[in-house]
Amino acid sequence: MASALTPNASHSVSVLVRMPSNTAAMLHVVQAIATTGANLTEMELLQRTNQWIDRRLIVEAASEEQAAAVVEAIAAVPDLELLDSEDRTFALHRGGKISVEPKLPLTSQAQLAMAYTPGVGRVCKAIAANPDRVYELTVKQNMVAIVTDGTAVLGLGNLGPAGALPVMEGKAMLFKAFGDVDAFPICLDTQDTDEIVETMKRIAPVFGGVNLEDIAAPRCFEIEARLKQELDIPVFHDDQHGTAIVTLAALENALKLVKKSLSQVRIVMNGAGAAGLSVASLLREAGATNIIICDSRGILSCDRSDLTPQKQAFAIEAGGSLADALVNADVFIGVSVPGVLTVEMVETMASDRIIFAMANPIPEIQPELIQGRAAVIATGRSDYPNQINNVLAFPGVFRGALDCRAKSLTSSMFLAAARAIAALVPPETLSAEHIVPSAFDSRVAPAVAAAVVEAAQANGLAQTLAVTH
Amino acid sequence: MASALTPNASHSVSVLVRMPSNTAAMLHVVQAIATTGANLTEMELLQRTNQWIDRRLIVEAASEEQAAAVVEAIAAVPDLELLDSEDRTFALHRGGKISVEPKLPLTSQAQLAMAYTPGVGRVCKAIAANPDRVYELTVKQNMVAIVTDGTAVLGLGNLGPAGALPVMEGKAMLFKAFGDVDAFPICLDTQDTDEIVETMKRIAPVFGGVNLEDIAAPRCFEIEARLKQELDIPVFHDDQHGTAIVTLAALENALKLVKKSLSQVRIVMNGAGAAGLSVASLLREAGATNIIICDSRGILSCDRSDLTPQKQAFAIEAGGSLADALVNADVFIGVSVPGVLTVEMVETMASDRIIFAMANPIPEIQPELIQGRAAVIATGRSDYPNQINNVLAFPGVFRGALDCRAKSLTSSMFLAAARAIAALVPPETLSAEHIVPSAFDSRVAPAVAAAVVEAAQANGLAQTLAVTH
Repeated sequence: MASALTPNASHSVSVLVRMPSNTAAMLHVVQAIATTGANLTEMELLQRTNQWIDRRLIVEAASEEQAAAVVEAIAAVPDLELLDSEDRTFALHRGGKISVEPKLPLTSQAQLAMAYTPGVGRVCKAIAANPDRVYELTVKQNMVAIVTDGTAVLGLGNLGPAGALPVMEGKAMLFKAFGDVDAFPICLDTQDTDEIVETMKRIAPVFGGVNLEDIAAPRCFEIEARLKQELDIPVFHDDQHGTAIVTLAALENALKLVKKSLSQVRIVMNGAGAAGLSVASLLREAGATNIIICDSRGILSCDRSDLTPQKQAFAIEAGGSLADALVNADVFIGVSVPGVLTVEMVETMASDRIIFAMANPIPEIQPELIQGRAAVIATGRSDYPNQINNVLAFPGVFRGALDCRAKSLTSSMFLAAARAIAALVPPETLSAEHIVPSAFDSRVAPAVAAAVVEAAQANGLAQTLAVTH
Repeated sequence: MASALTPNASHSVSVLVRMPSNTAAMLHVVQAIATTGANLTEMELLQRTNQWIDRRLIVEAASEEQAAAVVEAIAAVPDLELLDSEDRTFALHRGGKISVEPKLPLTSQAQLAMAYTPGVGRVCKAIAANPDRVYELTVKQNMVAIVTDGTAVLGLGNLGPAGALPVMEGKAMLFKAFGDVDAFPICLDTQDTDEIVETMKRIAPVFGGVNLEDIAAPRCFEIEARLKQELDIPVFHDDQHGTAIVTLAALENALKLVKKSLSQVRIVMNGAGAAGLSVASLLREAGATNIIICDSRGILSCDRSDLTPQKQAFAIEAGGSLADALVNADVFIGVSVPGVLTVEMVETMASDRIIFAMANPIPEIQPELIQGRAAVIATGRSDYPNQINNVLAFPGVFRGALDCRAKSLTSSMFLAAARAIAALVPPETLSAEHIVPSAFDSRVAPAVAAAVVEAAQANGLAQTLAVTH
């Protein structure tokens, strides 16, 4: 399936060349790139003489193999000297992607005497005397732990804590960039539930919230439940609840387009991991009544003896395959693996069907294959319309939770968050290719935060008056 | 003793007033402040009309009581309206003092696709396939955990993990400002040695080093020893080794001034906690042979049955009090409590005596009391000459350790660090009031780092060629 992917930034290379300063040479380079199927996206002039010119070329490829082919093809251009090339993604990650910065400069003895000894001692004593002041006088008020054991890193499986760190750093960047939330990666060198819970309790004093990430099911359910019970700060498993919030927002808007009601549509989900089950739960809370979930063995049916308690909660009388489930279905939601949905299956669904193929990075079905065969198509990818992207949810959810010091996060807050996201695409701009706001829409996080605060207040879970951050 | 302190920034207040715009009014304000003994240090004009003027006054006091008296005295000035006042130290700490920042902006889909999914997946797989690459591709290469259990916060005792957090945040600021080291506070909600060790092992994947801080003796010794053994990253207890490095640097320079040799002087230390014992150890490694340590019960003597193994290592035949020990001593080093050293004791010492009274914030003896009675006087305070400040050591120590990926930190590195600090005060600038470089001398951290790298290489403990950071 990888070959079906379009070239994109994640596989881009930066190539430094010295080439003759004439248009013919340029033409050869562009032709060389074109033969590989990759895209030349940027070109920078570094220096030149009358004879030659040094250029940096940015080329997007669809795979590492294609990226390597690009470099090879450019190197083979006559009269061209390949000076350097680098994988831009690896270059960006080198040295890590976050830093810990002082909020104010330390350039005088006076600042040092206030920020550190002796002045800091008075602040410490104030907190020891009144523990609640830790929220006023330290980073705790705005600091989230991004916690993983590395057992389910993206769709890549158990890569361990070090292998998971680049994702957690990226998540910390997103928290800051989109929600102004400080977040720090905690990658745990244990995959034992008790040890994870115990460790988080011990390091909790610094944090105002916990975002669980990339922990394999079904362990993630128990870890979340126990942390919610044993910590006095909000706990959120983004793979579950973030996905659920954004999926619900997208589905509500998609249903408006086809004039169907959530309470009446037949929804088939493929994927019964943490994300799938959480999406199904939130859809049910939002009013969906007809949800059929499939895992790799087919429909979660009451007859099956291999179901975890979480899966059992969604088991139905009927059994069968994904293809069986899809007949006359209104909605397909995939949080599973590439390519499991076929054009034939789609064609057995009801009219005005909605397809959310969210497997990452390669969807359950390539959107190109069903263009015109579905009313609305969404994926998890940024290079197709309607990206179901968790970044629409988690920065605002934590912004709101921290602003009002929510005791915990509840599904009523998730429903409110989903509605806030959906509402940012009003009827006049809603279309089959625009059912959710862009990840870069700066209205999203504040709207989600406000919705979370309001729901927290309505449920008596807000511990302070929310301050606008 | 607090009344002996001079006004300083740590107790400063910011006072906002509306006052008549004439010089007489200004005079009244200054007189009011003068009666309290505090110092008016800054004055800012905010806005004015012909009749009145709004000013912000910054006033340094010696205590919270004096600061309160300042506000009261200003408020009592005729025709003056007190608009607002705030404790500047508390204002500075509000909201915490560090933030977690993305190293690069996230403003395009292309950046998102490289920093996060799908691009990040390739980086994760590269680390999982070659674990050593976590040092290349993540924050681990430059990230230090500042670890405390809150049992010995400054000189304030057991304030718990939340009460310790403001100090750890301040330390993180210093790490970044002086060593360009990213550091993050880990305040542990346990005071059990096994649990602390276990927790640090579990969260170690993100960190390239551990700085222990404000953990009470003797537990700190075992925690440090076990972490050194069980973690594969450098571990440093700043209260011990940072203090020892800077004290040794200062003592070597002080001895040059009085033309005495470290191997021959009689050194009396008061304070046998973590800092005292570590200073004594490093002085011994540097060549000191005659060290007498006192704790609150007097000289650590072989006769005493109440000594921990760490104290026993410095026990001597003779017994007695601090006063007994000081007779004919060349050097006094205090890492203990305010006011324990008297003028009478100082006068029994040898000629050209050296007094390091480093108790914080109030020294073992106020320097004013022995001016002219000692050849060199140093304290831990920034408002007297010769501040023995750990910030001269720890940023450079970790900078060097991270740059060469030192397997561990050893006393040979500490000796090298001390010599590097001492060498920054060459003979032509060395004087009784200038035995160590300023905390703001930007040469210090790089010099210490270079010395640490060199010692690591000499001992076969450097795992990579050091890169100049």
